[in-house]
Amino acid sequence: MKGNLLYEGKAKRVYFVEGNDNNLILSYKSDATAFNGLKKATFEGKGKYNNLISAKVFEFLHEKGIKTHFKQALNDTEQLVIRTTIIPIEVVVRNIAAGSITKRLGIKEKTPFTPPLVELFYKNDELGDPLINNEHALFLTDAKEKDLMEIKQAALTINSYLQEFFKGIDLTLADFKLEFGRTLDGEIVLSDEISPDTCRLWDRKTGEKMDKDVFREDLGDLLKVYDTILNRLEAVK
Amino acid sequence: MKGNLLYEGKAKRVYFVEGNDNNLILSYKSDATAFNGLKKATFEGKGKYNNLISAKVFEFLHEKGIKTHFKQALNDTEQLVIRTTIIPIEVVVRNIAAGSITKRLGIKEKTPFTPPLVELFYKNDELGDPLINNEHALFLTDAKEKDLMEIKQAALTINSYLQEFFKGIDLTLADFKLEFGRTLDGEIVLSDEISPDTCRLWDRKTGEKMDKDVFREDLGDLLKVYDTILNRLEAVK
Repeated sequence: MKGNLLYEGKAKRVYFVEGNDNNLILSYKSDATAFNGLKKATFEGKGKYNNLISAKVFEFLHEKGIKTHFKQALNDTEQLVIRTTIIPIEVVVRNIAAGSITKRLGIKEKTPFTPPLVELFYKNDELGDPLINNEHALFLTDAKEKDLMEIKQAALTINSYLQEFFKGIDLTLADFKLEFGRTLDGEIVLSDEISPDTCRLWDRKTGEKMDKDVFREDLGDLLKVYDTILNRLEAVK
Repeated sequence: MKGNLLYEGKAKRVYFVEGNDNNLILSYKSDATAFNGLKKATFEGKGKYNNLISAKVFEFLHEKGIKTHFKQALNDTEQLVIRTTIIPIEVVVRNIAAGSITKRLGIKEKTPFTPPLVELFYKNDELGDPLINNEHALFLTDAKEKDLMEIKQAALTINSYLQEFFKGIDLTLADFKLEFGRTLDGEIVLSDEISPDTCRLWDRKTGEKMDKDVFREDLGDLLKVYDTILNRLEAVK
């Protein structure tokens, strides 16, 4: 069923599906990278956590009516998705200041953003994924003004749902990154993954960081933290 | 008439006007700085060129109906302006790619932007004047959504007039930076200066750089270039 490799990124491999042009298989790797690839490590088993956690997040968003590329988890590290061409824009939604924005704009960590802040970054490793504004996005990508409006609005709607989702397992969603893609029909849908690799999640009781910052900042056992999140999600239903 | 010093920036001193709360005096210095202050030099006489060139630009924009802080040149290095509180946003309009954007977004120098590209930067030396989007601007400054719309629209209108103005003296306007301020009545008007320190100007015949890039890139005699611009402007009428 799994066809040739289409693309290999830092966290996933993407495969064709034999005899089915409309689908792809995402295969989650166990590599962790941070600071635009400058810090690297492999955590045996991480691929499983991101695959299964992302599957649960996308299933939840699907129930809420969000259009996504997700179809189903196939096994511990692979999931079947609708084939999309990724729009090379990383959409970051911030509820609370953390990470790069604190240094970039001199905003104290944990400062709340009301309303949440939406940022666009140009997905380009060579350039270090620079911050862009709408006009840059129109110049650099094939997205049109109305696509950008739609993507930003979707990101804010998804934010509301994700805050509810993570609150249900005692986590505060500080910020997260989304990617959107175009299906073969041209429809824009939520793509990529939503996992502790792409979200900042803080334990609501202890304030502990429960996401890739554990790796970025050498705070402890990354796999144990990801395992806790998956366990909490599986305990919900 | 000149009162106490209100503020000293990299390129200008700002003085109160005794007995007149509504006006300020800008006094142009002869210092040149580049790369966020990392490169510095003094060019005796530069203050005069920027003061007189900026005066001519603002007089032209006034004739076109643009609301600005400019009242009149007082002498070679000083001008009288309406008192404003600067909104800490640098508005950059780009007609042709040059300078920081070429590296930041991997865009080849001289690539035309159609329509022109508008960028906002947070005016903050300590942070290196970082690029911001509208939402950052709303968070970091007291500007409202409608103020940002007004400022961006004004920047594009000013761009059209400035292209015409500089074409009249055989210069291509590649890009430039504007600052806006609020008068005591709360009206937003164009402030600061418009000079070869704040514009990229290329000779239409030879393609030579005729602006602060001569200093940034050690291309020749900065004062001679600024003198040529002032002479061309004085020859027009």
